[in-house]
Amino acid sequence: MSSSFGKLFTITTWGESHGPAIGVVVDGCPPRLPLSAEEIQVELDRRRPGQSDIVTPRKEDDKVQILSGVFEGHTTGTPISMLVPNADQRPGAYSEMKDAFRPSHADFAYQSKYGIRDHRGGGRSSARETVGRVAAGAIAKKILALGTPAKPVVIRAFVTRIHDISVPESSLAELPTLSEIEANAVRCPHAETASRMIERIKQVRSEGDSVGGVIECRVHGLPAGLGEPVFDRLHADLGKAMLSLPAVKGFELGSGFAGTFLRGSEHNDLFEMRDGVVHTTTNRSGGIQGGISNGEDVVIRVAFKPTATILRPQKTVDIHGQETELMGKGRHDPCVLPRAVPIVEAMAALVLVDHWMRQRSQCEFRF
Amino acid sequence: MSSSFGKLFTITTWGESHGPAIGVVVDGCPPRLPLSAEEIQVELDRRRPGQSDIVTPRKEDDKVQILSGVFEGHTTGTPISMLVPNADQRPGAYSEMKDAFRPSHADFAYQSKYGIRDHRGGGRSSARETVGRVAAGAIAKKILALGTPAKPVVIRAFVTRIHDISVPESSLAELPTLSEIEANAVRCPHAETASRMIERIKQVRSEGDSVGGVIECRVHGLPAGLGEPVFDRLHADLGKAMLSLPAVKGFELGSGFAGTFLRGSEHNDLFEMRDGVVHTTTNRSGGIQGGISNGEDVVIRVAFKPTATILRPQKTVDIHGQETELMGKGRHDPCVLPRAVPIVEAMAALVLVDHWMRQRSQCEFRF
Amino acid sequence: MSSSFGKLFTITTWGESHGPAIGVVVDGCPPRLPLSAEEIQVELDRRRPGQSDIVTPRKEDDKVQILSGVFEGHTTGTPISMLVPNADQRPGAYSEMKDAFRPSHADFAYQSKYGIRDHRGGGRSSARETVGRVAAGAIAKKILALGTPAKPVVIRAFVTRIHDISVPESSLAELPTLSEIEANAVRCPHAETASRMIERIKQVRSEGDSVGGVIECRVHGLPAGLGEPVFDRLHADLGKAMLSLPAVKGFELGSGFAGTFLRGSEHNDLFEMRDGVVHTTTNRSGGIQGGISNGEDVVIRVAFKPTATILRPQKTVDIHGQETELMGKGRHDPCVLPRAVPIVEAMAALVLVDHWMRQRSQCEFRF
Amino acid sequence: MSSSFGKLFTITTWGESHGPAIGVVVDGCPPRLPLSAEEIQVELDRRRPGQSDIVTPRKEDDKVQILSGVFEGHTTGTPISMLVPNADQRPGAYSEMKDAFRPSHADFAYQSKYGIRDHRGGGRSSARETVGRVAAGAIAKKILALGTPAKPVVIRAFVTRIHDISVPESSLAELPTLSEIEANAVRCPHAETASRMIERIKQVRSEGDSVGGVIECRVHGLPAGLGEPVFDRLHADLGKAMLSLPAVKGFELGSGFAGTFLRGSEHNDLFEMRDGVVHTTTNRSGGIQGGISNGEDVVIRVAFKPTATILRPQKTVDIHGQETELMGKGRHDPCVLPRAVPIVEAMAALVLVDHWMRQRSQCEFRF
Repeated sequence: MSSSFGKLFTITTWGESHGPAIGVVVDGCPPRLPLSAEEIQVELDRRRPGQSDIVTPRKEDDKVQILSGVFEGHTTGTPISMLVPNADQRPGAYSEMKDAFRPSHADFAYQSKYGIRDHRGGGRSSARETVGRVAAGAIAKKILALGTPAKPVVIRAFVTRIHDISVPESSLAELPTLSEIEANAVRCPHAETASRMIERIKQVRSEGDSVGGVIECRVHGLPAGLGEPVFDRLHADLGKAMLSLPAVKGFELGSGFAGTFLRGSEHNDLFEMRDGVVHTTTNRSGGIQGGISNGEDVVIRVAFKPTATILRPQKTVDIHGQETELMGKGRHDPCVLPRAVPIVEAMAALVLVDHWMRQRSQCEFRF
Repeated sequence: MSSSFGKLFTITTWGESHGPAIGVVVDGCPPRLPLSAEEIQVELDRRRPGQSDIVTPRKEDDKVQILSGVFEGHTTGTPISMLVPNADQRPGAYSEMKDAFRPSHADFAYQSKYGIRDHRGGGRSSARETVGRVAAGAIAKKILALGTPAKPVVIRAFVTRIHDISVPESSLAELPTLSEIEANAVRCPHAETASRMIERIKQVRSEGDSVGGVIECRVHGLPAGLGEPVFDRLHADLGKAMLSLPAVKGFELGSGFAGTFLRGSEHNDLFEMRDGVVHTTTNRSGGIQGGISNGEDVVIRVAFKPTATILRPQKTVDIHGQETELMGKGRHDPCVLPRAVPIVEAMAALVLVDHWMRQRSQCEFRF
Repeated sequence: MSSSFGKLFTITTWGESHGPAIGVVVDGCPPRLPLSAEEIQVELDRRRPGQSDIVTPRKEDDKVQILSGVFEGHTTGTPISMLVPNADQRPGAYSEMKDAFRPSHADFAYQSKYGIRDHRGGGRSSARETVGRVAAGAIAKKILALGTPAKPVVIRAFVTRIHDISVPESSLAELPTLSEIEANAVRCPHAETASRMIERIKQVRSEGDSVGGVIECRVHGLPAGLGEPVFDRLHADLGKAMLSLPAVKGFELGSGFAGTFLRGSEHNDLFEMRDGVVHTTTNRSGGIQGGISNGEDVVIRVAFKPTATILRPQKTVDIHGQETELMGKGRHDPCVLPRAVPIVEAMAALVLVDHWMRQRSQCEFRF
Repeated sequence: MSSSFGKLFTITTWGESHGPAIGVVVDGCPPRLPLSAEEIQVELDRRRPGQSDIVTPRKEDDKVQILSGVFEGHTTGTPISMLVPNADQRPGAYSEMKDAFRPSHADFAYQSKYGIRDHRGGGRSSARETVGRVAAGAIAKKILALGTPAKPVVIRAFVTRIHDISVPESSLAELPTLSEIEANAVRCPHAETASRMIERIKQVRSEGDSVGGVIECRVHGLPAGLGEPVFDRLHADLGKAMLSLPAVKGFELGSGFAGTFLRGSEHNDLFEMRDGVVHTTTNRSGGIQGGISNGEDVVIRVAFKPTATILRPQKTVDIHGQETELMGKGRHDPCVLPRAVPIVEAMAALVLVDHWMRQRSQCEFRF
């Protein structure tokens, strides 16, 4: 079950980077939801290779097929199986990875665990696995947009830092619009900063190097009451979702690590009434208190390390225990964050739909 | 199942802060493990109130009873039920919390979710719930110490920062010993820093205020191969475990957020042979690659916010939607970190035993 | 997790026959349900020893304590921990079971699996474990009675056969009332048959022997739509629930094994309209089609073997591999069915509430 | 998760009868198992339509493709995705099922639950869904054959009754061989009885009618110690597995319902030593005691109702609440048992591998 995620809205991903295809099964989707392959494709196009000049130039159309669970344009409540063929397979391109362990990749760990691995392009550990997550997340996003009693739930992720280039905090007072985010290749809603980020990425790529950074994700319109203490706190499940993504090294909610430099009297969010609704005057809690949403915007941040593959020679060890040197080659992302934005959104959507279904199942009984 | 954690070594905690008792059921414990209540008690004593002059002076013995699953001093493989009576109940002391929502506490969120809540001392959202986790974690720690084929797995958590007072990084080159950590009330292995931390905690307490900080946890001796990609990556489950603790706002693995300021060429951990074993020259990966342990020390850090309860008047809203003011009182921790150290260790141990059992179940077949 | 049951309404039982106590944790109970220990006790009193002259004369009050999850007479949505002290412990009474394996009991299998066992009274394999199930089932029954939008769901189990003494089929055309069932010690709603059953049980007991039989359980008022194909079909989960009870050897739905002697043209349930509602003219489907309730009464039957403990010498083997003879003694039920009736009801209720919550979580979205 | 089965060796099936394809994802398979599509195909060929003159003449090759999880002829420990295209789609052939509910089928129940259904050929409720189970079961059978420390575990299912034609009990003293079972179209190991069964099936088919019967399944070579009390008893999980199959109405273990006519003194299995190993002199326990295998052959029986589709007019109701008549047509199995034999074996194998992995994870620690 380690390739399944979600308790009620459950996805199971499968596939290796260079196998014939990659895919996902979504189990537990509510019935009667209007759904087409085109809607899924929109999100896949946001993550696919070759979409701009700062990501990998690999050629993958990533065209999704829906094989089950949708009938006459609506979900039926049965499992939705989606498949994306792997078009750009160049098995030969990875022969150097067959024996030598790439530094800071999963090769050695997989070999240690399983005693065998599909080395081609990283096999199962490749970020290509996230294709299935994004396809499933597209369904979750649609449920959040349509299925609420009140207003649509909007999930918006965006890049706030690349290497040491950060957006000015003041520019994020308002929730960025989708068009602001999609306006540039790096998916940073602050245009001027985005230009500098893009320049930096191109520069490190030209040096055969890579960079990382931080993605922020906000959820607007979420009703209070989602989250399942004590273990399945909403941010604990969001954290697990994000930490299960390749290259992620850290996660924080609301004030996060920075909040630990404040005193309680500076950090607490006071309650007040606004338009007849309980609100907090500040949002250091990040929209979640005690593991349950409180109606404010959910605010989380995810740290992505610099891409492990660099086009430079690096010392390493091979499968026979011999020290050797490995020269990275191929067509890699010098920075994973631009393409990770839709993946972060997908994971957030999956967690929220799952918790929404859990909340309904337990708490809406009337006695 | 939101009060259960772990897939194979599963704990289920129950109990409210001011109910008659609090407890845990551990299901899936390997049989034939020598186990006594005294061993559990050692860990509970590390988390109990009143243990020093910088924690809450509440009087709780926290004496554990084992009600099942242990026979003639050994586990039998059946569920181990443990119970701790709540001794120091003062229901009257919390009457002001009945109607008004405490700022940055879970009161409002619980009320929104369930439409009812046990307000006494925070009820289920109280950190008192972690008593069960620590009791269960004591068993997990013993399994890790005894059950390995090779050497004992050692888990060691300690405070690295309180407010803005940090241990010097150089002082953490070696894994701190238990006695270094337990040598002072704040559980920081660097004595000089510990003194300053304690002073700071006393000072903010005298001002009716509170502080937070960071706990680091290291795991030494863990074999390579633990962790279950793609979703149950070892650090994803560790992250969820920590984020499910009260007051936690952030989690990071290895280089964490700081690592995003490095380039790939600076960040990558190169492989080398040492004593016939594959090792990395550095450990920015934090002992986990691709979600699987690689044999290096696991290194994680957890951010705890300043205690939400402060002994000052704060604006808030009551259950009837009226704005009001609430004056914190009672006997609270001005800083949760000293008592959180054994809790972090417990959660880490629970995750590791669970993953160890999962690894055995799948990967040790011989064909 | 093998001591947990249910996906959303989850119970975890713990305890051995001769430990200090036995209990259960119920996680996922809807909040705001009125609940008292007295209501739980009513069901426990139906299963407790010593209630009539055809069951074991052991003295157990089985007084339940609620330790969490209930506040001011209502459930709070947090785990409900219930505990029943084991009063009548006579460890010495079981010394002969320490080494010798009782025929057709679980002794040998437990020893083979765990390499250790609590032999006292069967330890964890004792039917005393069902105390927790009945306590949890009492809550589930109350939810079914109160929580429906339309009418209460009524669960009624009763004995239809003891040894070769069966109730006349015609007498079961109507759903038996609770008072008809509780009118006699054997819990058979047909008074004349009940007398003969009681006589048979007394007779075999006087011969140091035992008998088994069949319990039928019907659920009336269940709405159509409960059940989760393809694996969690409603009758598959009911079957697992019943087969997890001690002494159960068979399970059937509706026409069951007898239905296999019919042709399709004889067996099919035709649909018709009655009072504006779709009904079937017959109910060989047992109220479930394709794993989903269809609105007719659910009808299941459970086969219980003759009690394994008999007061006669039997050949067996001891823990050292020596053949020996074991003489059953102690205070045992010569027939488990009378006390199993409330247990069967409890398990059915647990499955139904769980499936009801699952149905709500997925299928009640409006797009 | 209702389309997933198994805790550690987990399968997730997807697909509708008349969608583009049908498939399964197997998660948790041990790595390094030699595996080819041809081995899977052998089992699929045993269940496919058109294999003999007593089953449906539909033309389906049921050619399986392995899309992931196998590399250079060995499993890698990652999810194994298998897909079978649906070749013989005739959507028009089912137009009469669009509105009218077929008696004793799942149509009405699905419509009640989901408010929508794929009516073509029964959609998700079609027995075609079992293609994925058989493909996954083929892997489980191979693990059982190769993976044991001692001897191969052999699973053998066969038809013991069709309608009222039973095999003589004496003929089943020995475990039937695979060639005895596969020697005839009905998969009954007693040749003379098989002939009469085949004749009966042909006769009822010629009358537009259908029949059911009983399949027995035995497991030989299973070590003692598999099964997870209290809820995941080995036979409880076997029972759930079988009851989750289309058309199954009953399940029994060992002596089953018949055993309830015996007294304890007649029913108990006495222990004895044979060749230095603990055995029982009889096997009314069916190889499982207290929910744990005891080393004897596991013996279970499954009741299949007569096929619901018959080629006769039947009264029913349509989706608009109008009474109507439906005339079955198409190419259906007049008796599902011959093709259900490999499905029963597959489900048994899946349960056993899952429990074997669970047993290893918990009970093989040495302290």
